Amino acid sequence: MADVSADPRARRPGGRSARVRAVVHRAAADLVAERGADQVTVPAVAERAGVNPSTIYRRWGTLPALLADIAAQRADTAPEPTGDLHDDLANHAAWTLADLSRPGGVAFFRAEVAPDVDERRAGLRECLQRVSTRFETILDAARERGETPPSLERVLDRIVAPIYFRVVFSLPETDETYARSLAAALLDADS
Amino acid sequence: MADVSADPRARRPGGRSARVRAVVHRAAADLVAERGADQVTVPAVAERAGVNPSTIYRRWGTLPALLADIAAQRADTAPEPTGDLHDDLANHAAWTLADLSRPGGVAFFRAEVAPDVDERRAGLRECLQRVSTRFETILDAARERGETPPSLERVLDRIVAPIYFRVVFSLPETDETYARSLAAALLDADS
Repeated sequence: MADVSADPRARRPGGRSARVRAVVHRAAADLVAERGADQVTVPAVAERAGVNPSTIYRRWGTLPALLADIAAQRADTAPEPTGDLHDDLANHAAWTLADLSRPGGVAFFRAEVAPDVDERRAGLRECLQRVSTRFETILDAARERGETPPSLERVLDRIVAPIYFRVVFSLPETDETYARSLAAALLDADS
Repeated sequence: MADVSADPRARRPGGRSARVRAVVHRAAADLVAERGADQVTVPAVAERAGVNPSTIYRRWGTLPALLADIAAQRADTAPEPTGDLHDDLANHAAWTLADLSRPGGVAFFRAEVAPDVDERRAGLRECLQRVSTRFETILDAARERGETPPSLERVLDRIVAPIYFRVVFSLPETDETYARSLAAALLDADS
């Protein structure tokens, strides 16, 4: 993907460049939510955002790179560590649910935008890597405090997987209370 | 979808109709595995299967109906009940993993083939319904034996969701032993 951070225009958060980024992000997210990621094209995003397609091609290169940039920006809003394993897991469970529930959230997570199977797999790996890194940071911090947290695999099985599954299949009662309860249940089972 | 069972040609299991069904199923499953369900069309399936597209349109109507027929046929291979809750859950966990791991298995489960958002949701609901019914049958049988099985929601969270997540994201060590262990862990937690 295009290295946006290397783009000098991206360094002026209040400037025209930031406004373009915001309007393009919004247009892409709305279109993904309305049509599904596989039906969205760069020209369609440009039209919705009211910018020239070349603006998007120049800055992001491809639609997958644009969607990856949106996902990376979303990740910046993840909750701060609290120093308490249960609270950190519960906060991140709630945040993961909120993130997946946003317009296009599951589509971004699935990265199903890539028509090519290898690209799609790479997108899925990147998504998994992103969510794994978030939770790994929490588990590492707990280990540094001398605690014995569950493994990342257990966190994926018991917190991330059920949230993902319930959002994909629109199961009822999938709310913040439910997401937080997964963290408590996992720690109870391991203690 | 087309009601295939009402088609008199479908009632002769060894006949030409059954052979056409098998070859079309195989072609569709292979193409879904190779390209992703959203890139597969009826003409492409027909070409791969060596049949006329009108044969597919006449018998199944649409590609989603064809994929639903394949999924329904797969469901016929589900394991028989054993009369033991743990064994039934473990057998169905292993079978669900095998089913999702087949070529195109996840794509079928996600029913992502429908370009229309409402159709896609309907496909997802049908997939969820299918897997829910399988497990509900097991839980009902346990209740009839006077046992107190976990709720369907817990089975989805603790068995189906992790299997689905791990197949979608190609996590390593997602094998039959792992799938079966989810059943034991769920029953241990509830006992």
